[in-house]
Amino acid sequence: MPAKNAFYAQSGGVSAVINASACGVIETARAHRGKIGKVYAGRNGIIGALREELIDTSRESKAAIRGLLSTPAGAFGSCRHKLQSLDENRAEYERLLEVFKAHNIGYFFYNGGGDSADTCLKVSQLSDTMGYPLQAIHIPKTIDNDLPLTDTCPGFGSVAKYIAISTREASLDVVSMCETSTKVFILEVMGRHAGWIAASAGLAAERDSDGPHIILFPEIAFDRTKFLARVKRTVKRHGHCVIVASEGAQYADGRFLADSGITDAFGHRQLGGLAPGLAEMVKSELGYKYHWAVADYLQRSARHIASQTDLDQAYAVGAAAVEFALQGKNAVMPCIVRGSGKRYRWHIGEAPLQKVANREKKMPRSFISRDGFGITQAARDYLSPLIAGEAYPDYRNGLPRYVRLKLEPVARKLKTAFKV
Amino acid sequence: MPAKNAFYAQSGGVSAVINASACGVIETARAHRGKIGKVYAGRNGIIGALREELIDTSRESKAAIRGLLSTPAGAFGSCRHKLQSLDENRAEYERLLEVFKAHNIGYFFYNGGGDSADTCLKVSQLSDTMGYPLQAIHIPKTIDNDLPLTDTCPGFGSVAKYIAISTREASLDVVSMCETSTKVFILEVMGRHAGWIAASAGLAAERDSDGPHIILFPEIAFDRTKFLARVKRTVKRHGHCVIVASEGAQYADGRFLADSGITDAFGHRQLGGLAPGLAEMVKSELGYKYHWAVADYLQRSARHIASQTDLDQAYAVGAAAVEFALQGKNAVMPCIVRGSGKRYRWHIGEAPLQKVANREKKMPRSFISRDGFGITQAARDYLSPLIAGEAYPDYRNGLPRYVRLKLEPVARKLKTAFKV
Repeated sequence: MPAKNAFYAQSGGVSAVINASACGVIETARAHRGKIGKVYAGRNGIIGALREELIDTSRESKAAIRGLLSTPAGAFGSCRHKLQSLDENRAEYERLLEVFKAHNIGYFFYNGGGDSADTCLKVSQLSDTMGYPLQAIHIPKTIDNDLPLTDTCPGFGSVAKYIAISTREASLDVVSMCETSTKVFILEVMGRHAGWIAASAGLAAERDSDGPHIILFPEIAFDRTKFLARVKRTVKRHGHCVIVASEGAQYADGRFLADSGITDAFGHRQLGGLAPGLAEMVKSELGYKYHWAVADYLQRSARHIASQTDLDQAYAVGAAAVEFALQGKNAVMPCIVRGSGKRYRWHIGEAPLQKVANREKKMPRSFISRDGFGITQAARDYLSPLIAGEAYPDYRNGLPRYVRLKLEPVARKLKTAFKV
Repeated sequence: MPAKNAFYAQSGGVSAVINASACGVIETARAHRGKIGKVYAGRNGIIGALREELIDTSRESKAAIRGLLSTPAGAFGSCRHKLQSLDENRAEYERLLEVFKAHNIGYFFYNGGGDSADTCLKVSQLSDTMGYPLQAIHIPKTIDNDLPLTDTCPGFGSVAKYIAISTREASLDVVSMCETSTKVFILEVMGRHAGWIAASAGLAAERDSDGPHIILFPEIAFDRTKFLARVKRTVKRHGHCVIVASEGAQYADGRFLADSGITDAFGHRQLGGLAPGLAEMVKSELGYKYHWAVADYLQRSARHIASQTDLDQAYAVGAAAVEFALQGKNAVMPCIVRGSGKRYRWHIGEAPLQKVANREKKMPRSFISRDGFGITQAARDYLSPLIAGEAYPDYRNGLPRYVRLKLEPVARKLKTAFKV
């Protein structure tokens, strides 16, 4: 019997290092050719499996696969598509099994965040409920750093580094300009309902006078009066004020400061656009000249300044997923375990998917300063090693050389199409 | 008679490499101690001279001055303050002379853009009109790249590199997501009335299918119908559309798409906030899911990915300014001259300030594609060498080590204060 093939797909918002996890999966699978056949990647995540749109990664050269290490975003395409329960949409599961059977797929690697972990968990149960032998391993990825049971999530460290650097740089800009011009600068960052990314901006400050002076966390209810008083005090004291605001910042009643009115396929509200509103608030109440920036996708695709630690961990969870599969495991996720001791060390552990799916890990209150506007030493100790090391890509003509895969499709074996 | 001291100041919006020009001035002056005494930096530009707030750069270590090479923004503080004409505000000029005389200043180096060149020109005329021997040299700096008589402006190449890289990275992100999520991504960039920065995003694309698919230049009147049709066509063809919009984009009647309603000290309207408006237009007319980013100060302070060419040129114009002064010149500006031939070469030339001040160099029409939405090969040939080379700063704990100067004040000699 030929070795079972593997299915690998990317899901949810992409990151600067998710392709490094793909590289870890494919290189490790290639090193075990006798036990794992080919790695088929889903074109646009789980949708690729449902539509039988598979990409044959064996057609990619060794160099191209290595190139994934230094290429941001999702090389195989990602998706926002959540499988319903078996009861709600049995057809989808039957289709998945049909595709997996047709292509002799025995390993399922799904690379994503909390929602994707849920999808992976549902697939892992197919083995029992529908009698098809399949091992499903989830590979953690989310810039929001909100997965439980792992010390950190691959993708986060690089965004944290980008935001910390950008905050330090923009703060110097504002310091230069504040005497006659901009007094208040607002940087809006991602992170959904968790303040991890916003917190990372706090690393930019070495002294009390350094920006950011105010961080707005989703975990702390926004109080307009208190906020404006703090802005005013900061400008009086330092001549300027740098604010980093999480897109998930919200009022005490749960309303987001920035609700775009759009809902995604996972049922989440799309956030973004909080910075101009805050700027307007500062201008109308305090009269200060402002500038604001919204980093949006720039922050999560910034492979040009990825964290080496993050990159190493992204590769490692990909490689570990294959090793777990070879050990016969199912419904698990490789996670990052932080060693004890002052010097940062980490290794790969194993987390049961049942305890990962659909749970959000928010910032502990002990990471946020008492006044709610900054980070504590505990947060610094946690965050600092995650942004260590600069994993620069190669350049050609002044621009990063990001790999382009051939993305050759696997010939279809099924007669029927499936509409997603 | 002791050698005359020099005054150096930074003016207008800062950049990732303006401190490299400061480094060029100070290191070159130090190398000619017999001819130039001390370099006094104005705290916050020309305002520092008017207020007699001078910084003694001789108190900074050699290493600290070298550190300016890799530190973004204006280490001595900048300002937006335009001198009026001698007739309009004679008091300011008399004050300047008073300060210069008190501190034995014979050299005036002003580091800025078009408005600052005007200030420098006015100061250069003091020598004749008010009988005080003074040589004024302008040192070019503007991320907008809109100064005449120089092939490029130090500060621009680094922003161009940042925007080209960010566009390439964010485009990969959108490609990954577009099947089920974001179809249109809009990046708003700076550049005021000139499309140079927006044009640099065009370098990100290597193929027709690569983003950016649409660039909105200030030089091309915005046509809503044509724009929406192009967005639609691009999404139909490639599944997604990446748009880079200059903050100076405007309608045929000259109204800016994004006018914040704020006017700065130079009388310019503050721009910014065009991206959310365009996104709303796309959503309401075409129904596509969007994301948008406004890079704002992040783009001009991004020393972490500065262009080596830009850095070299910024240093060179600073050094050349001192050499021009030593040659007895006045009312001139060192400029960048591009050599002929295929391989990029450059050297320092000399431009008369009279022909620099208050003139904006816009993008030539030949740099913009016929349809008005992209760049031509001529633009690529011009832009490409300017972003060559990665001038990485040193890092400590995952963050760039940017220098902190002591900024020791020069003891005041005048009894009177001057209100600016």
